[in-house]
Amino acid sequence: MADSTYVPPKVWAWCPGNGGQFANINRPVAGSTHDRELPQGKHPFQLYSLATPNGVKVTILFEELLELGITEAEYDAYLIRINEGDQFSSGFVHVNPNSKIPALVDKSGEEEICIFESGSILMHLAEKFGKFIPTDTKGRADCLSWLFWQMGSAPYLGGGFGHFYAYAPEKFEYPIDRFAMEVKRQLDVLDRQLANNRYIIGDEYTIADIAIWPWYGALVNGALYEAAEFLDVDSYKHVVRWAQDIANRPAVQRGRMVNRTWGELTSQLHERHAASDFETQTQDKLESA
Amino acid sequence: MADSTYVPPKVWAWCPGNGGQFANINRPVAGSTHDRELPQGKHPFQLYSLATPNGVKVTILFEELLELGITEAEYDAYLIRINEGDQFSSGFVHVNPNSKIPALVDKSGEEEICIFESGSILMHLAEKFGKFIPTDTKGRADCLSWLFWQMGSAPYLGGGFGHFYAYAPEKFEYPIDRFAMEVKRQLDVLDRQLANNRYIIGDEYTIADIAIWPWYGALVNGALYEAAEFLDVDSYKHVVRWAQDIANRPAVQRGRMVNRTWGELTSQLHERHAASDFETQTQDKLESA
Repeated sequence: MADSTYVPPKVWAWCPGNGGQFANINRPVAGSTHDRELPQGKHPFQLYSLATPNGVKVTILFEELLELGITEAEYDAYLIRINEGDQFSSGFVHVNPNSKIPALVDKSGEEEICIFESGSILMHLAEKFGKFIPTDTKGRADCLSWLFWQMGSAPYLGGGFGHFYAYAPEKFEYPIDRFAMEVKRQLDVLDRQLANNRYIIGDEYTIADIAIWPWYGALVNGALYEAAEFLDVDSYKHVVRWAQDIANRPAVQRGRMVNRTWGELTSQLHERHAASDFETQTQDKLESA
Repeated sequence: MADSTYVPPKVWAWCPGNGGQFANINRPVAGSTHDRELPQGKHPFQLYSLATPNGVKVTILFEELLELGITEAEYDAYLIRINEGDQFSSGFVHVNPNSKIPALVDKSGEEEICIFESGSILMHLAEKFGKFIPTDTKGRADCLSWLFWQMGSAPYLGGGFGHFYAYAPEKFEYPIDRFAMEVKRQLDVLDRQLANNRYIIGDEYTIADIAIWPWYGALVNGALYEAAEFLDVDSYKHVVRWAQDIANRPAVQRGRMVNRTWGELTSQLHERHAASDFETQTQDKLESA
């Protein structure tokens, strides 16, 4: 592939399959590939997701809301197996024309509302329940700045660094170097912010933490791309402290399990329809294993 | 650089200067490099920016608000020359610890508010003035979904495709191919959305359009990376129609000029402190040229 003699063609053309791991689900076109409706449960919120960092943001927020006793935040979480193309069903594309998890249907009001992009879903739920987002103007502005920071930064971590370090068909030095530098800069931005703040924007745990932790917290605990040593993440001491603090929250521990199909069997809850599922379903899985 | 024999080291190390165009402003650390306060003007809003796509989002919104006669949206726009490292001054880092343009100081209330990330600034201003964001729950959810879609998608266009197609030291085939495919998918997502909608979420022009247009509209009109032919952007007919429609708006034409330091002299307004600057400053520039 890459050498200094490559000259891009005048017009790009698709070579299917040419893209490393996940090449089979990356396409240059949008839209559905097959007709299938999405399942629907009885709760006000229907989540269609997978326990990737973006998926986990939303299940953590739901579990945090339920932890506060807000039963109106009850949700059904259905599994979208992205490696099998579930995100290209007509039902999923109706909810999210971008064919990415997570996607949410809010049936709590008179009109059914479809909402996509993890950041948008966090905003929607936080505002609906008036939790995990400050109500004063300055606090809200801070929370928005860091929430959007995460949305604009994580593509360099995931689609950039993660792809080239872990998933591309070869180890290409230049892209790995480029994206590693940017991820380290982002970790340093967080580390300086967390040097003086318990949580991202201060003393209050908000959707900014809930958005940032599944990506940068996972880097710290080695769960993402096995890149902790390469990026020397232990040197970001304030990020490490914050990541552990959040990992200890019961709602976070539950949220991480939902729609998870890998890792320890007891860490997987493929679908979530009731609080009791965290006990019974993982037990079932162990017994059938 | 890239060949199949490259093995990443155990711990990444920085080789300064190894990054193509803009290598001199990319660093693996955050924080300021020099002490300098930011200038401040007399208006309620102080913008520190450059007319990149992310910068232009904010100046377009300001000009749209002023076009509606909302004089409370008057702003001073100061130039941040990112190639000269202005974003690393102590004053800028105080406003935006992430050292990226645009950054805003809102002095309209009792407490001074710093806000960063273009999406966050758009939300803050749209909510403050109750304009360009729907007030009904469904419309607001749609607007949020597409606003966040832009924030999560454009890094693949800018930091991914744009870097490897236009700025990297060599033409590397694999990254160009990877990011071109994703950008084409994004264009197709937009094209399908705009097939049935005048604007992104329907009949209403919102901050979703204002966020998306400076990136994907610029691709269409050939202003971004000279990649219109390579990506065959003319084939996305609904995107082309929408992009032209927005380009015709007077506020958009003014917004594009602010903090612009390249292109035709008459298209550049380095700083903006009053509505009349659009006439007088560009005239001065022509005379001194």
